[in-house]
Amino acid sequence: MGKLLAVGTVAYDAIETPFGKTDKILGGSGTFVGLAASQFGVQTGVVSVVGGDFSQSYLDMMEGKGIDTTGIEIVKDGKTFFWSGKYHNDMNSRDTLITELNVLETFNPVVPESFKDAEVVMLGNLHPLTQASVLDQMNERPKLVVLDTMNFWMDIALNDLHEVLKRIDVITINDEEARQLSGEYSLVNAAKKIHEMGPKYVVIKKGEHGALLFNDDNMFYAPALPLAEVFDPTGAGDTFAGGFCGYLAKTENYSFENMKNAIIYGSNLASFCVEKFGTQRMEALTKDEVQTRLQLFKQLTQFDIELQ
Amino acid sequence: MGKLLAVGTVAYDAIETPFGKTDKILGGSGTFVGLAASQFGVQTGVVSVVGGDFSQSYLDMMEGKGIDTTGIEIVKDGKTFFWSGKYHNDMNSRDTLITELNVLETFNPVVPESFKDAEVVMLGNLHPLTQASVLDQMNERPKLVVLDTMNFWMDIALNDLHEVLKRIDVITINDEEARQLSGEYSLVNAAKKIHEMGPKYVVIKKGEHGALLFNDDNMFYAPALPLAEVFDPTGAGDTFAGGFCGYLAKTENYSFENMKNAIIYGSNLASFCVEKFGTQRMEALTKDEVQTRLQLFKQLTQFDIELQ
Repeated sequence: MGKLLAVGTVAYDAIETPFGKTDKILGGSGTFVGLAASQFGVQTGVVSVVGGDFSQSYLDMMEGKGIDTTGIEIVKDGKTFFWSGKYHNDMNSRDTLITELNVLETFNPVVPESFKDAEVVMLGNLHPLTQASVLDQMNERPKLVVLDTMNFWMDIALNDLHEVLKRIDVITINDEEARQLSGEYSLVNAAKKIHEMGPKYVVIKKGEHGALLFNDDNMFYAPALPLAEVFDPTGAGDTFAGGFCGYLAKTENYSFENMKNAIIYGSNLASFCVEKFGTQRMEALTKDEVQTRLQLFKQLTQFDIELQ
Repeated sequence: MGKLLAVGTVAYDAIETPFGKTDKILGGSGTFVGLAASQFGVQTGVVSVVGGDFSQSYLDMMEGKGIDTTGIEIVKDGKTFFWSGKYHNDMNSRDTLITELNVLETFNPVVPESFKDAEVVMLGNLHPLTQASVLDQMNERPKLVVLDTMNFWMDIALNDLHEVLKRIDVITINDEEARQLSGEYSLVNAAKKIHEMGPKYVVIKKGEHGALLFNDDNMFYAPALPLAEVFDPTGAGDTFAGGFCGYLAKTENYSFENMKNAIIYGSNLASFCVEKFGTQRMEALTKDEVQTRLQLFKQLTQFDIELQ
């Protein structure tokens, strides 16, 4: 069983959906990645920063899940990163109402000594230079480096992004971002171009339309589980990434075939994440529930045609 | 091996895509369904109507593929149904430039004697009363009735549509149409509502995002094959339906499990259809190519996770 280091945000979110709204609740990419990975019992360390206003009970909850919070710096006189958003009726689009970077503005991630030998590193959606600085701190080249990014960094730090892309194995990105990064409309061609930038594996997230994994001429597709109700999509993408990384860290098998399983686990966990506000569902999730839903994914996708 | 009766249009299409444009070429839902079903060697009869301007060589081509054209009425002094459309750069949306119904306006399908005992009936996208009149002509209730429809009929003939829905087994419909017919945004809930209207099986086509099959609480999902280039999407939905019906007619097994295979074959054949203009690719398609691509579909979707 390998160690997983996840660098990302630990945040307060205020969310409005057609089903209701919340005050400030726990959010952040590092949080969702950590909670997803905790399903696999891997030793997971989250590197992030919060302000003095951050509730100790959240850190306690994470520690209770086996997440190492040593790397979450607490800036006593600072305020925690805050994001507020409102989802439209179709749940596929949202408006950001408020973004207060706060302590995130001067975030310099420090990797705890005990995680400098992590086999798997998940670089959450941060400035490419910040992502690179995490890799610089590792004792040796991790077995697998996964990077998440977004159009914002392509707009303001494309060169830095290209530099860090040369140092990673897997990029997770959504379809629109893949098109922007590559300049190609077809996702097959987009993945080819992105391969050439460095990552041997390209994961393209299509939200309710599932996710594609590309590795040269190999492709794999995992659907999102069709749900009667999507309550709150916040954190689904990070939960997907956390499930992906957690499963790979647990199995220490970084082959394309095993990445298929990791993608399915990512999609599996993400399907829970959206069932309640914020981290609620992920905090309560049990291994049995995940295994039962894995059966659903098999029924949803597996078939048995004889070749003729 | 069962017989398949397919009622639909046989048409002239003029198509413009970012890759080029065509003069009047062979098109129509009945044509694409017939060509797809011909891959399975089932006895397929197409019921349709064309004008005196329709080229005998197209009918000869169909007969050469084993498609029975007895049911294609030729109105000597009429003109063949003509559709012209232009696809946008993303290939997911198109503008209809010209629709000339011509002989289709007074189309009264007559089922040939030799197909009144067909096990599988595919009712192409026509007026619901026209679809019902085909069922009225069958010797007995077919083993499987599949119906395609569109928002146009929901707008102008909703009551007639509801009547014919009570008499069918499978509806194929796209996601927007499923939402319109059911008044539900979630496709899971939409399928539930549509079940209550009659069809035990609901196939929701999502274009490049694949297709979902619902039967009560059972779900199956088939992706579209990610392609580097989509040359011309015309006929892909009908080819999908033809593959679905053709496989079921061939195997005469109408279980949910076997419908999974049928959906995969539909998606498989549709992935070829879009590679060239009009019917070109489907006319040239070989069994070996289909089997090779079936392997691709397996690699794309099949995984092997041990339950824990």
